[in-house]
Amino acid sequence: MVHVAILGFGTVGSGVAEVLETNEERIRRNAATGFELKYILDVRDFPGHPYASRFIKDFAIIEQDPDVRVVVETIGGTGVAYDFTKRCLLAGKDVVTSNKELVATHGCELLAIAKEKNLNYLFEASVGGGIPIIRPISQCLAANELDEIYGILNGTSNYVLTQMIANGLSLETAVKQAQDNGYAEADPTADIEGHDAARKICILASLSFGRHIYPDLVPTEGITNVTLEDVSIAWNAGYKIKLLGRGLRVSNDKVSCYVAPHLIRKESLLGNVEDVNNAIVVRGNAIGSVMFYGAGAGKLPTASAVVADIIDCAKHFKARKYIDWEEGGPSVFADPDTLKTRWYLRVPAGSGEVLETVSDAEVLDEKNGGTAFLTGEMDAKAARALAGKLSAASIFRLLED
Amino acid sequence: MVHVAILGFGTVGSGVAEVLETNEERIRRNAATGFELKYILDVRDFPGHPYASRFIKDFAIIEQDPDVRVVVETIGGTGVAYDFTKRCLLAGKDVVTSNKELVATHGCELLAIAKEKNLNYLFEASVGGGIPIIRPISQCLAANELDEIYGILNGTSNYVLTQMIANGLSLETAVKQAQDNGYAEADPTADIEGHDAARKICILASLSFGRHIYPDLVPTEGITNVTLEDVSIAWNAGYKIKLLGRGLRVSNDKVSCYVAPHLIRKESLLGNVEDVNNAIVVRGNAIGSVMFYGAGAGKLPTASAVVADIIDCAKHFKARKYIDWEEGGPSVFADPDTLKTRWYLRVPAGSGEVLETVSDAEVLDEKNGGTAFLTGEMDAKAARALAGKLSAASIFRLLED
Repeated sequence: MVHVAILGFGTVGSGVAEVLETNEERIRRNAATGFELKYILDVRDFPGHPYASRFIKDFAIIEQDPDVRVVVETIGGTGVAYDFTKRCLLAGKDVVTSNKELVATHGCELLAIAKEKNLNYLFEASVGGGIPIIRPISQCLAANELDEIYGILNGTSNYVLTQMIANGLSLETAVKQAQDNGYAEADPTADIEGHDAARKICILASLSFGRHIYPDLVPTEGITNVTLEDVSIAWNAGYKIKLLGRGLRVSNDKVSCYVAPHLIRKESLLGNVEDVNNAIVVRGNAIGSVMFYGAGAGKLPTASAVVADIIDCAKHFKARKYIDWEEGGPSVFADPDTLKTRWYLRVPAGSGEVLETVSDAEVLDEKNGGTAFLTGEMDAKAARALAGKLSAASIFRLLED
Repeated sequence: MVHVAILGFGTVGSGVAEVLETNEERIRRNAATGFELKYILDVRDFPGHPYASRFIKDFAIIEQDPDVRVVVETIGGTGVAYDFTKRCLLAGKDVVTSNKELVATHGCELLAIAKEKNLNYLFEASVGGGIPIIRPISQCLAANELDEIYGILNGTSNYVLTQMIANGLSLETAVKQAQDNGYAEADPTADIEGHDAARKICILASLSFGRHIYPDLVPTEGITNVTLEDVSIAWNAGYKIKLLGRGLRVSNDKVSCYVAPHLIRKESLLGNVEDVNNAIVVRGNAIGSVMFYGAGAGKLPTASAVVADIIDCAKHFKARKYIDWEEGGPSVFADPDTLKTRWYLRVPAGSGEVLETVSDAEVLDEKNGGTAFLTGEMDAKAARALAGKLSAASIFRLLED
């Protein structure tokens, strides 16, 4: 019997308790042991709750109880969650989390502590909700040199874009609808501005390329510049606009990473990923491209990923998992503005003028005297200069896949 | 340093040697140890090969060499591969394989031997080539009760169907083209008739539902009954015809499994899976649906999955992986003919007659005086009776997803 404690009884934390109870038999079979939820730490009171006797408010009780072998951190953020995670590891307990912000910000340090103490710090639920992605990258693709990882990493913004594309809703109306349906928080900034996707691509890139990529290095553009007009022009030309996080190994010791809206072909790998779903494409030198798809968030999917990590801890008390990466920072980071790609521009000029100015331009649309077109391959500096010269209203990257 | 032997130096076996060499540094980093390829067993001679000194013809040398800790079985089939695998396990060596026929036929017995000897018998490469699927099911989804698993499991038949759908090639021409491109063997029977897909869905269902499903129990229909006319009618109505393997938990102690062509919506999860690619959808009670996509075959993708298993063996000499299932057979198998679904029928009757005879019929096409339509939900017995009564030329299942 393995004793578990949960820190933070919010959506994911309470989901973990629910999955542990609902699927108890399957979990016991897979782990070859049972689990006992001994403590739930939360600042709030839960009077009358079936687990009432397990709620505590003093973290030190968990820290000092040698019975507790695995701690689930579902507090979120980088405040007490950081402090408690460190103290759990130092107290000899495995830690499992869905806290993407903490892993993206302090993952390298926490993994190093776990390694030194021969413990596990696992975070399958931090990216893609319940979609298996952390373990497949670190284990199944372990024989590959990975070259690129990209995907639709934020369910809220993908839902908003899907509503704009499929139903012609404005960004504002679609965000409101996402909030009404419980897909977006009262303050949707982290989703809509791309910060959530940035944290996730940092985790994926750190794991794939072996060096910590910190979120504050990653140029991040959300979906607030995506207009219904662009969505419609792209659609008619065979594209959808999707918010992607993307990480690339640009040389043996440099990695690049960014978040931005992209035009992708409707029939591309990510073209059918709609609503709150997420999908991640990984490209390796032996495997080619593989894709992982599923619900990117939600109480039970995310909780089931946390519980899978709890099971994995129980199987690896003696032989810890080899999930870690080295220190990173600016010295290993290549500016994504130097990456060459094709670009979508919408400009007030007529197409004759565009075609004269821009070599390799492919006109997608010419309405109201303006023109939307794709450029040839160029880096961000050149594309932005062109956009300035032509007084472009919109500028987005194109991703071929 | 871990010593490895390869049994069978065909496409996958030689790919394993190539990946071990090409990605040596990445592999060493991930495994926290290096690997030495000590022997290659093959009945053929490879004069002048860079590995010439490692080739042997006597299996007993490997069996009796205590240095060899991990054996790669890429012989294929259920003959010597079965004998050698057993003897390796009994000699205390982990075994890693891409041999789907052996796992589907004798997996339960071989896993039991591995378990008794505290060894690993791993087969990530047996399904979906390099796509991570075995490990995600057994680990990442370990907190879920799995209800269903289905997918496009055979690259050759998917390539043939893609050519029929996209380019209007006949089945025969498309098969010939697949052979010319190296996607189909000289004798394409196992691919085209669905036997390869049947072995794979047996492995996936055994792993997902915990009881061995043997291939000889699984009703298997290939793509030879798919005509260009059906492909075209389906396309115009928003569907593609794809060969699917499908396994379902129909009750607590019964599993059903079959292979057959299905109509699926173009914009469904599997709708964009073209050419030789594979994709597998898994449905669990917490996770909802997740999908895994990639190249379903090919030398390097498959070899990279084998090497990932070799790495995993090296990490788990002390704590073996919990991949196994119980004995199964007819007592746990439910006849898939009892499953209800909608059906596609193409009949010589006019649509008036069809609509009179069949309640809930949805007419897709009426050419040449005949009619193609979808039925309401019914089991296979009822659908076949209807097809007989209406002298149907074609009958296929519809899968909603």
